[in-house]
Parts: sequence; structure tokens; C-alpha cells
Amino acid sequence: MIDKTKFKKDLALVRKNAPLVHNITNYVAMNNTANALLAIGASPVMIHGQEEAADMAAIAGALVLNIGTIEGYWLKAMILAGESARAHKHPIVLDPVGIGATPYRAVACKEIIEKCAPAVIRGNASEIIALVKTGAKTKGVDSTDSSDDAVDSAKILAKNTGAVVVVSGPTDYITDGTRVECVKNGNPLMARVTAMGCTASAIVGAFVAVNPDAFEASVHAMAAMGICGEAAAEKAEGNGTMQLYFLDKMCALDDAMIDKYLKA
Amino acid sequence: MIDKTKFKKDLALVRKNAPLVHNITNYVAMNNTANALLAIGASPVMIHGQEEAADMAAIAGALVLNIGTIEGYWLKAMILAGESARAHKHPIVLDPVGIGATPYRAVACKEIIEKCAPAVIRGNASEIIALVKTGAKTKGVDSTDSSDDAVDSAKILAKNTGAVVVVSGPTDYITDGTRVECVKNGNPLMARVTAMGCTASAIVGAFVAVNPDAFEASVHAMAAMGICGEAAAEKAEGNGTMQLYFLDKMCALDDAMIDKYLKA
Amino acid sequence: MIDKTKFKKDLALVRKNAPLVHNITNYVAMNNTANALLAIGASPVMIHGQEEAADMAAIAGALVLNIGTIEGYWLKAMILAGESARAHKHPIVLDPVGIGATPYRAVACKEIIEKCAPAVIRGNASEIIALVKTGAKTKGVDSTDSSDDAVDSAKILAKNTGAVVVVSGPTDYITDGTRVECVKNGNPLMARVTAMGCTASAIVGAFVAVNPDAFEASVHAMAAMGICGEAAAEKAEGNGTMQLYFLDKMCALDDAMIDKYLKA
Repeated sequence: MIDKTKFKKDLALVRKNAPLVHNITNYVAMNNTANALLAIGASPVMIHGQEEAADMAAIAGALVLNIGTIEGYWLKAMILAGESARAHKHPIVLDPVGIGATPYRAVACKEIIEKCAPAVIRGNASEIIALVKTGAKTKGVDSTDSSDDAVDSAKILAKNTGAVVVVSGPTDYITDGTRVECVKNGNPLMARVTAMGCTASAIVGAFVAVNPDAFEASVHAMAAMGICGEAAAEKAEGNGTMQLYFLDKMCALDDAMIDKYLKA
Repeated sequence: MIDKTKFKKDLALVRKNAPLVHNITNYVAMNNTANALLAIGASPVMIHGQEEAADMAAIAGALVLNIGTIEGYWLKAMILAGESARAHKHPIVLDPVGIGATPYRAVACKEIIEKCAPAVIRGNASEIIALVKTGAKTKGVDSTDSSDDAVDSAKILAKNTGAVVVVSGPTDYITDGTRVECVKNGNPLMARVTAMGCTASAIVGAFVAVNPDAFEASVHAMAAMGICGEAAAEKAEGNGTMQLYFLDKMCALDDAMIDKYLKA
Repeated sequence: MIDKTKFKKDLALVRKNAPLVHNITNYVAMNNTANALLAIGASPVMIHGQEEAADMAAIAGALVLNIGTIEGYWLKAMILAGESARAHKHPIVLDPVGIGATPYRAVACKEIIEKCAPAVIRGNASEIIALVKTGAKTKGVDSTDSSDDAVDSAKILAKNTGAVVVVSGPTDYITDGTRVECVKNGNPLMARVTAMGCTASAIVGAFVAVNPDAFEASVHAMAAMGICGEAAAEKAEGNGTMQLYFLDKMCALDDAMIDKYLKA
């Protein structure tokens, strides 16, 4: 059961503090991610150069690492930034995009988890399952497993890594290995907008930058995503307008929208 | 004369099979391309790391190579992916963006064609002409030749390379060197939306992944592009809304839209 | 006081000549930038490969260098392109995104300014101040100083570098060290759309490609930005639709819109 008062408090904090969220993310998601962070009230930075990734992570409120279009140069930059964020006790969010698609992705995620100790790992069901059963295969970057099935894997992953694990899907599940919360808001059209999952990870970054309880922060971030997606879908006519109305709704998100939309 | 029944059958196959389309494309086009593929019902993947490009191409239904923001690292990744796709007999689509603009682009395209043997090459008139007459110059990445003039070059290129060649323009021409089909749908506003050509190449990738006849697949893909562009332009007020309504229409594309819009 | 007749003349020239604007810019901004350039009537090219950056800059009407997602490879490409543009007497626009955020950015900008001699430098107040007082720190890439405060810094920077300096903000200031012009059009929602500043730099590139007086060209470009932003904000409901309506308005920009919106 999501605590509305705490959710509203975190949203107010994001809007008031405008936390600097440092993203080392994929090319597809960068523009959407930056706009979603601006819409929720955060201050996005996309910096991946090995010359400066650690410097940036040292001063940002949170770091979001996303392996969507990973390659060796970027992985090294992620490690540099992640180790810096860790040293400064800034929370890290890991998005293991398409981890089951190729062996390299599994290796990359393993290195990031070991060296950077993410506070939150967010993926779809296939990705979370693949992170646990390293032999698992996914079909590209879209999910072929249901998020419900992934809850057990999420708990194991949370216990193994110490991270809060978020499984996105028609119902989102958030667990720290003991507690499990679910977010029932959302709309199927969200899955047809590219980088919507990556955007969710970035929004988790904004909330975890203002609330040190990564479990609560993740629940609130996913609830914000679901509410805005649901509200946007009311007038969207396809994934084109959906993408834009989603951002508009994230700009508009307030206590009244939470009261109207949040599913208990 | 486009065979409506075959077109509808291919569209239904794309929606049913959700083919995995692997794109190594330019930074400008990635987001649009991914959304267009999701809109038509395909499953897009953008993966270019040399560590995994070949692995990904081995399991995807089609590979789309686009040189828009090429550099040495990416060219090598394209070759790795292309040779892998070729070995697995997966069709490859090449988009020679702005090939006449610099000598490097001509060298890159030549290497891709020789090593990867694309099933389809799609470009605007200037690009197709430049691919044939390697001395030809284009002005940046926008077309300065009409697609009608490029038909002869397209036939020669098709015969030389064994690829189906698509020339985009107010009228699109598709040829395998012998057959020539044209698509008369579309709207001038499409040319003012960046990466619309790149999107066309990706949509060709979706169709060629479900129909092994690359000529038919290309005709159907270009007809889908033209219909959606035409429908979107009815309410677009500039290239901003055009971009979004185009995606919405691609989500909505069905037999009724084909019946309403397709020009014989 | 902005000269409307000269502004209209420059706009007509951009639409008529369709100047080729070569951008080496950041990943976040590329799509927006390309669409904005197409909307205003220019012909955008995004080319950064070290193999061809100098070749492209040699034939483009203007070069826009933007350090938003800089790394060593890209910096070298910018220098190659910038030296080529300089040798061919093509104007260069520098956008020192987030220059105060890390030491590397200051080093990169210094090298670009020394080797490429930009005709225009455009940034927000924090960035322009940081460029002068190299010890200054900014918070990420969003501005924490007001553009009014930055005018003195802008004048100093203009005198030190020989460049026209543009300070974006609620009021934009443009100076060549002696003359100062201001643009009062715009809307606060523009600051919530990512890469809006980067887009302004690209539009400056379009105008400076048709008007050799970089001061006038910059004033007209910023006025075009402000007018389109103001017109778009009339119907936008958040940063999602704002982004799109802005492009639509830039397509529609004409003498009548200038007469209606331009603030004296």
C-alpha cells in the first residue's frame, strides 16, 4: 500500500531541490530522459567522457547507468563515474537494458554491480530474471516474461546485491528483498514508446536523490511514471503523441493528480 | 501496380511476428527509428558495440546499417554485424546517408556493400546517383536530384550489387534491376522531418524480416511510409507535430487505411 | 532596438539559400537541432568522424560546435572541423554547454577558442561567466545566474576573443564588446525543454551563414527563437508539446509573425 503522504512529500522535494541527476545512458533514451527529468523538476546532466565522468558524479545527487548502447569506452566511463559516486555516497541506479541479448551485457552488468554497488536496479521482467539466471536469454530489449513471474528473481537479486530491485510491467514490483510493493498504474501504450523504461530509471534517480530510503524512492518514482502514463494515454492516439503527453503530464503532476489516479 | 492483398499480408505478419530489427544507425535517427519500428509492430534493437554487434546480428530478423554519423569505430561494428547477418542469411538494409558529401562515405559504403551484400539499398535520388557515379557530389544529406532521374542509376546499382534499390522522393521507386515499382503516396512535409529517410530504411528492415522477397517487402514498406506520412500531414501544422502524428498513424495503420489511402 | 527590416531580410535569405549548417553537437540535442534547422529552412548536417569532419566543414556555410557530451575523440573532431572552417573563412558558433561543471570542459573550450576563433559564442549566464572567470562553478548544465548579470562578462569575453557573445535567458543579450542588443521575446517553458539552448546555437549558425555581420545574425537568430517559443507556449501544456509546437512555429515563422510578436 503506497503511502500517499510520503509520495507527495518526495515529489515536493524533487520540485524544490531540483536534484542534479547524472546520466550515462543510451543514445536512444537521452533526449526523452532529459526532458522527463526536467518535467519532474530535476536537473539532468548527460556526461560520459572518461576525462570528466568521475568529476561529474562527485557533485551530482544521483547517478543513472544504462547499458542500452554500451561499448567498451562507455563501460569504462560508467565504472569511473560509479566508483566516484560510490566514494561520495551518492546513490546509483542501474538499468540492465537487454541484458540477456548478448554475453557482453551480462559481463558489463556484473562489473558495474560489483564495482559500483547500485542502490537500485530497474528492469523489465526478462531483464531481472536474466540478471539472476545468467544463462537466461531475452529477445532483444523488449520483455517476454511477465513482471509477476519475476518477483522471486527480484527478491533474490535484491538479497544478492543489496540493491532495491524494480520490475517494470503492467504491474510494477519493487522489493528490497524483504518488503514488496506494487504499482498498478500505467497503460499498455507506454510499452510502445521507446526508452520508457530508461525514463523510469532516470526518474528513480531523481527520487533517490531526495529520499535516502531507496525502496520508498523507487516506489514513488514508479507511481509517478504510472500515473503520468495513464493520464497521457487518455488522449494519446499512438506512440507519437503518447511520448509528448507523457512529458506534459509529468510537468503537471501534483497532489491532485496523485489523489485522482493513484491505485491503492 | 502494388498488390494490396500482399501488402496487407506483410503488414499482418509484421504485427504478428514482431520481428527483431537490429539497427546500427546514426545518433539523429535512433529515437525516431525505434519508435517507428515499435509503431509498425516490430521489435527494435540499437546495438553497435564491437563486443556484441555480431552476436546481436546473429539472432535478429534483419539488420539495418545507416552511415549518417559514421566514424571508424562504427564502420567496423557495421562490418562485424553485417558479416554475421550475412553468414546467418539475415537480410541487410543499407542507408548510404549523404554518401556524396565526403570521400570517406563512399569508401565506407563500398566496404559495406562488398563485405555484407545488402539485400536492399535505400537512399534519396542524390545518394543513389552518387553510389553509382562515385564522382558525384551531393549537398549535405538532403537530396538535390529528383527521384525520377535516379531510376536509371537505381537499375544499374541493383544489377551491380544484387540488391533491391529504393529511391525515396515525391514518388518512390523500387527496383531489383528488372522490375520497377513506384509508390505515389507521401507528403512534402515528410522531407522537413529529420531522419524520415532513415526511418524508411528501418521500416524496410521490418518488412524484409517477414517477407524474403526483398522487392515486395521494400514496396510494402515504402507504401506504409507514404500512407502514414500522407495521413499525418492532414492535421500536422509543421515538422514538429508531423513527426508525432506520423508515429500515431503508423500505430493505427490497418487494412482500412490501406484501402483509403493507397494510390494505384 | 531590433531592425525589423533587416531581420525579415535575413529570414528570407535563410529560407531562400537553405544554408548547409554543419553541427558537431551533443547526443541529446542532435534530433531537435536538426529539426529546428529544417524548420527555419536551413539544411542540417551532423558529421563528427575524424575521417571527414574537416572535409564537411570545408563545404558547409557555418559550423556549430557544442560540447554537451564532449570526450577526447569528439574534441579532436571539433578542432579538425574548426580549423578547416576557419581556413575557409566559414563562421563558427561555439556552445560551451555546462563549462563550469568540470575542469575538462574549460580546457576543451579554451582549445576550441584558441584554434578555431569562433565568430559567435552562445551560452546561458552561468556559462558565459564561467568562460571568463575560469574559476567559476556552475550546477550542471542549467543556469544559476541571471543573464542580466552576465552582460559585463559577455563584453569582456567578446573583447578577449573577438567573438560576438550571446547570453540566453529571460532576456537575451547579444554583444560584440561595444554594441549590446537585447531580445525580450521568449517564455519560461523554453527552459524546461532539453537542448533548447543548443537549438539556439544551431539557429545562430543558420543566420550567420547568410549574414556576415555576426552581431546582426545573432540578434535575428535569438529573436526568431524567442518569437517561436512565445507563440508555441500559447498552446503548449508542458515541455512535451512545447518541443513540438516550437518546431511548428519555426516552420510557420514569417513577416506577419515577426510583426505580431517582436518586442521592441
